[in-house]
Amino acid sequence: MYDVLENLPTREIRCLDLGFVELVDVMPRLVPEAQKTADYAIVQAARVSYGDGTKSVNEDRGLIRYLMRHVHTTPFEMIEFKFHCKMPIFVARQWIRHRTANVNEYSGRYSIMKDEFYRPDVDNVRKKSKTNKQGGDSLIEQTTAQDFLALLDKTCIETYQIYEKYINEGVTREQARMILPLNLYTEWYWKIDLHNLFHFLGLRCDTHAQWEIRVFAEAMLSLIQPIVPVAVEAWNDYHDHRQAMKLTRLEMDAIRRTFAGQKVQPLDSDNKREQTEWIDKAARMGLIVE
Amino acid sequence: MYDVLENLPTREIRCLDLGFVELVDVMPRLVPEAQKTADYAIVQAARVSYGDGTKSVNEDRGLIRYLMRHVHTTPFEMIEFKFHCKMPIFVARQWIRHRTANVNEYSGRYSIMKDEFYRPDVDNVRKKSKTNKQGGDSLIEQTTAQDFLALLDKTCIETYQIYEKYINEGVTREQARMILPLNLYTEWYWKIDLHNLFHFLGLRCDTHAQWEIRVFAEAMLSLIQPIVPVAVEAWNDYHDHRQAMKLTRLEMDAIRRTFAGQKVQPLDSDNKREQTEWIDKAARMGLIVE
Amino acid sequence: MYDVLENLPTREIRCLDLGFVELVDVMPRLVPEAQKTADYAIVQAARVSYGDGTKSVNEDRGLIRYLMRHVHTTPFEMIEFKFHCKMPIFVARQWIRHRTANVNEYSGRYSIMKDEFYRPDVDNVRKKSKTNKQGGDSLIEQTTAQDFLALLDKTCIETYQIYEKYINEGVTREQARMILPLNLYTEWYWKIDLHNLFHFLGLRCDTHAQWEIRVFAEAMLSLIQPIVPVAVEAWNDYHDHRQAMKLTRLEMDAIRRTFAGQKVQPLDSDNKREQTEWIDKAARMGLIVE
Amino acid sequence: MYDVLENLPTREIRCLDLGFVELVDVMPRLVPEAQKTADYAIVQAARVSYGDGTKSVNEDRGLIRYLMRHVHTTPFEMIEFKFHCKMPIFVARQWIRHRTANVNEYSGRYSIMKDEFYRPDVDNVRKKSKTNKQGGDSLIEQTTAQDFLALLDKTCIETYQIYEKYINEGVTREQARMILPLNLYTEWYWKIDLHNLFHFLGLRCDTHAQWEIRVFAEAMLSLIQPIVPVAVEAWNDYHDHRQAMKLTRLEMDAIRRTFAGQKVQPLDSDNKREQTEWIDKAARMGLIVE
Repeated sequence: MYDVLENLPTREIRCLDLGFVELVDVMPRLVPEAQKTADYAIVQAARVSYGDGTKSVNEDRGLIRYLMRHVHTTPFEMIEFKFHCKMPIFVARQWIRHRTANVNEYSGRYSIMKDEFYRPDVDNVRKKSKTNKQGGDSLIEQTTAQDFLALLDKTCIETYQIYEKYINEGVTREQARMILPLNLYTEWYWKIDLHNLFHFLGLRCDTHAQWEIRVFAEAMLSLIQPIVPVAVEAWNDYHDHRQAMKLTRLEMDAIRRTFAGQKVQPLDSDNKREQTEWIDKAARMGLIVE
Repeated sequence: MYDVLENLPTREIRCLDLGFVELVDVMPRLVPEAQKTADYAIVQAARVSYGDGTKSVNEDRGLIRYLMRHVHTTPFEMIEFKFHCKMPIFVARQWIRHRTANVNEYSGRYSIMKDEFYRPDVDNVRKKSKTNKQGGDSLIEQTTAQDFLALLDKTCIETYQIYEKYINEGVTREQARMILPLNLYTEWYWKIDLHNLFHFLGLRCDTHAQWEIRVFAEAMLSLIQPIVPVAVEAWNDYHDHRQAMKLTRLEMDAIRRTFAGQKVQPLDSDNKREQTEWIDKAARMGLIVE
Repeated sequence: MYDVLENLPTREIRCLDLGFVELVDVMPRLVPEAQKTADYAIVQAARVSYGDGTKSVNEDRGLIRYLMRHVHTTPFEMIEFKFHCKMPIFVARQWIRHRTANVNEYSGRYSIMKDEFYRPDVDNVRKKSKTNKQGGDSLIEQTTAQDFLALLDKTCIETYQIYEKYINEGVTREQARMILPLNLYTEWYWKIDLHNLFHFLGLRCDTHAQWEIRVFAEAMLSLIQPIVPVAVEAWNDYHDHRQAMKLTRLEMDAIRRTFAGQKVQPLDSDNKREQTEWIDKAARMGLIVE
Repeated sequence: MYDVLENLPTREIRCLDLGFVELVDVMPRLVPEAQKTADYAIVQAARVSYGDGTKSVNEDRGLIRYLMRHVHTTPFEMIEFKFHCKMPIFVARQWIRHRTANVNEYSGRYSIMKDEFYRPDVDNVRKKSKTNKQGGDSLIEQTTAQDFLALLDKTCIETYQIYEKYINEGVTREQARMILPLNLYTEWYWKIDLHNLFHFLGLRCDTHAQWEIRVFAEAMLSLIQPIVPVAVEAWNDYHDHRQAMKLTRLEMDAIRRTFAGQKVQPLDSDNKREQTEWIDKAARMGLIVE
């Protein structure tokens, strides 16, 4: 048997300044020597569903791609990943919203939080948000970003000193921690199956996700890619958060009108945002956008 | 307050010969008189997420459509439906695979199963399966279908007589029931939120679903439509099991080549099934398919 | 029909200094006039399970108590509650660990966090933790608690000023918020069924829970009690986080030895903590503990 | 590293006449040589929760027992088991009610069901049900049981012949199968974490479960026992479906009155069933029951 974990180039990727993602375990961990990847467990589970009924998709890669394309998700649930992760609390709060995972987090009630806080790079703080349409492509002033970071540093140092001092004077850990800021690091074990992980990665590798959580999502993706390469390839090809694209009913209608004419026709909608989304998609399809 | 359930034209739809779907309850059941639909509860929940941050989508219908288009699913989970349903066991077995619902089923261990079995129409038995590619568009012989149904009837009658007789002679209900066929009717209460119901309906209203479960899915859809009309409209426009359509990476590539040329270009794939799917989609978009 | 929500004495309970729990909706909201409570929906669902098979438990209260005692949980899932809550982030982080609920939280990415922070009472800060065995029944010094609170106040004021200033200077909301401390208030809609709510309340009304989350749990319990009084009574009688008690195999063994003798016999275990737990339980049963 | 699966005495247990449970995979599969069991993964996850905060429970077995006793369930979710199982459909229908597992079932839509049906032993059919209180300790007549089984055999043979014949004549698999009885065998892959498996086993190894599903539950328990021996021991000691016992509020009250007097005092309840349950528990505790 071949150990998919043992043969990874690396099991741990550093994220942000003090965080990390470590792939602790996989199911299946031992795979047939002839395969060398865990993709076979997807096929194994799918075969029990289809029995002898579907000879036409019985080439493994073809079957996995068929399952992904037609959203037959249960065989992907047969693969399981366990990660050890360390991230700032404001990242952990977004992460935990995904409910179909198992979690054991470091407890600030029972244990003393370590003196570890996330400090973004200046360049990162200078970026304006696309999501909120608060800015164009210009950056905010370097000195502004530096000033903010200096104050952030000061807050981390001062509040941690208070935290430590008052725990020593008898304030409970669970009470004292409330003075610490949201960039405090926490850590957890996080176990999730491949189907739900793809759902998580679809949302969190997306450009709309906050950059700080994307870093962790991209790290997980690169850790699992060598373990389930066929599934990841299929996901990239067929998932609309990746390289596939969904056309709405209104866009289907516009595209039919477009092909008849020469240039891109507008949507039958008075929603500006939706028109903008359509123009972006039309460009991705190679239509002539003026 | 306006009672969305009281004002439904009907709460119950007959399905198949002896089955039904009844909408027993909704959350919210009482809605503002000015609204008259439960859509407002989606908006209410979304507003707490966005706070004052997104004035630009604050028209209700626009907000619901935005949430659906961008797969912000949590506000749709705030609507809850409770159904009372009666269906054959082979349908119940497909149905129960959806795990994110609450179920109370009639128990064949504690209670005597009623003498009620599903008997398909002759026309239904004559249809060949598209899914299995077992046939073209011709039907099987009418007499064959009739013969099968006569044997089905005979089996139901005989096995129910055995079931009844041996329960009277002391065989336990839980043992005796094993002689009954899979078209036996069962019933349950089934409670689910709108997001998960849309997922269920996307799969089960689809032409790939077995016809007998589609009947129930379509019944549920028509029951909820007057209660959340804006959400249902958005789902129809933006969900790729409805009137939207997903283009894969390979199809995006083919479409770019197509627009440059005149007629539909093939996918860069040696998978026949995938090529066929592409031709179907190209036709839906109004491309010239030869 | 009787509106169980309309007839509540109050729908909202203030929690801590600036937080609250508001019961926004219930399923079923409209119940038969003869019942006036939502307990009947538990019975309705259970009856479909038992069919005609269990005449012996067909008195409603008896049936609900039987279901609770024998952990037949699915009928309790047929009741649904929707709350609007506001709580400090360190409380929200414990709360969200319960995965079987639907949540829409105020977003610090899209919206500006309000200038609202939790400030504990002095008496609360003076308490020592039982959980951590860090202290006995004495309190910490009043001046120590006051000093801590003064520093907490200062941190809240200063960090919020920085937060506001740098958002105005272009730092994104999602970045700026990381300087804010964990006692910052957030809010959400939270929807959960009665079975899962009982599980939540069992853990969070418990004396081992942090006091700040207990306040919210107790508020929810008092809001739902008039709506499902029979279910709440049964839960209090039969749940071992309430007035029931679980005896372990070792304790069963010790109790058998105890009854033969006169005074409480020790457990057959070298675990001190487990012995202490046994003595506590023995006392609760009225055994003579020396 | 030590392969916990490779070192099992057996990975597969036959259940009923044609069924089986096979343990296909475990997470963790490779464990430290010094440990030789997967229990260590529970401890590993718990340590991240408790951090340095709980030196007092840091002996491994003690920690696992503490977690089980105090219902800290998340570390047990870090262990995952994957089974391949084959069982009659009426058993599969009970089994699938447990929603927190991953399932891939053989599909009767796509594939031809095999000619395999469960045939109980005569002795099994002769048993009367305790659950339904339909009988005492006497058995039903042997000839009655034999007659039922002969009719069951006949039904299986005849309906399978019809099934096969009409599929050959063009009836779809999804339609034809509805004539087959509920003792037809199906099979699936089933993946579940240890916490949820314990919940399943608590219900399904119980004497109240139907005997046919208990056989599968007991098989799974014996397969996992050598892999997580400390966790299984703790579960047996502390779970009230095993060797622990829950006392209700009413029973606590009765026991206090009992200790003061000499013989077992009745519950303060007019519910006969509850009184009977109390007498059973009192006997288990060694109280004098008349």
